[in-house]
Amino acid sequence: MSSSFSVPALPHIQKLHAYTPGLQPTGPGWVKLNTNECPYSPSPRAAEAIKHELADEGDLLRLYPNPKSTPLRQFVAKLHGLREENVLIGNGSDDVLNLLVRVFGGPSAATGFTLPSYSLYPVLVAINDGTTTIIEFDRSMKLPVEKIVSSGARAFFLTSPNAPTGVAFTNAELSAVLDKFPGVLVVDEAYAPFAKENAVSLLARYPNLVITRTLSKAHALAGLRVGYALASAEIIELLDRVRDSYNVNRLSQAAALAALSDTGYYDAIIGKIIYTRDYWVSDWSDRLGWFIYPTQTNFIFAEPKNSKGETGPAVAKSLYDFFLAQKILVRAFPSHALTAPFLRISVGSDDEMFSVNKAIEAWLAT
Amino acid sequence: MSSSFSVPALPHIQKLHAYTPGLQPTGPGWVKLNTNECPYSPSPRAAEAIKHELADEGDLLRLYPNPKSTPLRQFVAKLHGLREENVLIGNGSDDVLNLLVRVFGGPSAATGFTLPSYSLYPVLVAINDGTTTIIEFDRSMKLPVEKIVSSGARAFFLTSPNAPTGVAFTNAELSAVLDKFPGVLVVDEAYAPFAKENAVSLLARYPNLVITRTLSKAHALAGLRVGYALASAEIIELLDRVRDSYNVNRLSQAAALAALSDTGYYDAIIGKIIYTRDYWVSDWSDRLGWFIYPTQTNFIFAEPKNSKGETGPAVAKSLYDFFLAQKILVRAFPSHALTAPFLRISVGSDDEMFSVNKAIEAWLAT
Repeated sequence: MSSSFSVPALPHIQKLHAYTPGLQPTGPGWVKLNTNECPYSPSPRAAEAIKHELADEGDLLRLYPNPKSTPLRQFVAKLHGLREENVLIGNGSDDVLNLLVRVFGGPSAATGFTLPSYSLYPVLVAINDGTTTIIEFDRSMKLPVEKIVSSGARAFFLTSPNAPTGVAFTNAELSAVLDKFPGVLVVDEAYAPFAKENAVSLLARYPNLVITRTLSKAHALAGLRVGYALASAEIIELLDRVRDSYNVNRLSQAAALAALSDTGYYDAIIGKIIYTRDYWVSDWSDRLGWFIYPTQTNFIFAEPKNSKGETGPAVAKSLYDFFLAQKILVRAFPSHALTAPFLRISVGSDDEMFSVNKAIEAWLAT
Repeated sequence: MSSSFSVPALPHIQKLHAYTPGLQPTGPGWVKLNTNECPYSPSPRAAEAIKHELADEGDLLRLYPNPKSTPLRQFVAKLHGLREENVLIGNGSDDVLNLLVRVFGGPSAATGFTLPSYSLYPVLVAINDGTTTIIEFDRSMKLPVEKIVSSGARAFFLTSPNAPTGVAFTNAELSAVLDKFPGVLVVDEAYAPFAKENAVSLLARYPNLVITRTLSKAHALAGLRVGYALASAEIIELLDRVRDSYNVNRLSQAAALAALSDTGYYDAIIGKIIYTRDYWVSDWSDRLGWFIYPTQTNFIFAEPKNSKGETGPAVAKSLYDFFLAQKILVRAFPSHALTAPFLRISVGSDDEMFSVNKAIEAWLAT
């Protein structure tokens, strides 16, 4: 075989652009508000459960994990008033989203999503050589119910509350879609623990509804990779055929179960994050005159206004760069007209938010 | 949406049969020799590294892991005398195998493998709606070099040493394939640490070679889900486009690096497993007159002979059932004529192997 070997990747893979995750700096001193991680530690029960699983110098690690994460799966089912067969555990919710695309979205079956929404969806569809149906929000960010209903998508992915805007959709709006949409509606509830409402109660009425959740945001376990799907037994069984047999490792299964059992702990930190979020949304709206979408998540999607009262992509970029120079990481979305004038700032600890606010003051003074 | 909703899964998913992993019993008292796990604990450095990562009651778990497992990736590269860009870290080697199928094998690009070999390959291809080219071994289990060369496969998966037979292929045989095969040859080296030779040195000569490894067998870390691919930078970059951004969690990355650094520990347990394996292969061959393929793995693929001197699928099933009644789990492969007369017995601890041997004696006395 000569060194001129041409790697015979499939055509759609050759054209593929990989998903770009948020920067994960490893050095010290960063105020990291770019990937919506939790500013507070996970329930101490998570680390305890891991240490328990490490008995006898880690002897249990030599054994494969429970293939279906059965104890965790049963616990999640109980938590949501569902049955085991309505739950699938994933290696992060990204794993679950990938399975959903593989089951429903191919070259001859379009996958739908809104723009803006979680930018992983189009990448997952492209990996599966699938076609897409994209529905654009307008500046109101109101749910385009009729457009989704008539989208022709086999499966439609809806981030609710939306990322990156933070805007939540009501169960009344979701029901309006579900009543008429002939495909599968995937409601990606990564941020639901910060919202006033979630769609779980709709599962009983709508066999075409799938809900995905993650432990990476409200549960402060992004480092462990655990997410799940809630749906009809029939849909879960289809996803399970495509799922890797041992997709979730032993320690993550044990820690996730322990963490989810500590509802009091999470009620407290979620309450604190909501309080912090609402404080700074009010402050920046009222005092600085910034437009901020009403958020039901752990981030703030804000349209910065500079000292001259200007807004727009250049103003957002100016503040992004100013933050970066001070080792404050937030997220910018320059590729779409609706998002380019905005920055997405994860809700951090009080110290982190004071740093952000101080940097904004300094930027306004430049 | 009425309850008569018909789930619109893609046609190839509707027809799909999921991979069946080996039984993972959770109760006590089992001699578990069915999934080739290591009978000895992993290096204590693995548990230590995990505990280190859990500092401050697990605070670091709130942060996403390193997306490319960079420190681990660099360490694996150094271990094999390669560069970082020649390594991709997976959530188990099953994750890596899945990526390889997605990059190379589709409806119009056949994926090849031998029969018998790792039964996951056809499932991964079916999930990707791909076509397969299957090359059957004959009873000699010699590598069918010319058949692979002319198979027409875009990528050909070869388990070496083979599972479930244990037979290893030499670098001379692999070179004979690589010299002429126009596709990508994936050498699945899950069991290479137990073999006399491995294919890593061939990477420098063959840009169409991919090697996959796992930490689930020799490294006693099946519970953590870590595997990797070694290949040209170009192939790794293609796999990386399809890989989930955060496919390997924080604890697994840290533990795998720590374990791989403890070469002295693993040399010792691998040596012990090889000694135990060779002892029982000799004993059952010489004393019981069983046919056993020469194995370079941590399992023994044996053709049991009953007290009447008979062999065959019914004899193998009889011993399998006898084992099961005594809570000894091994693996049977009844679906193929070449494998149905055999049982695959993972090499366990001395105690476990004495239990197996005692059960065989009892079975022979029935």
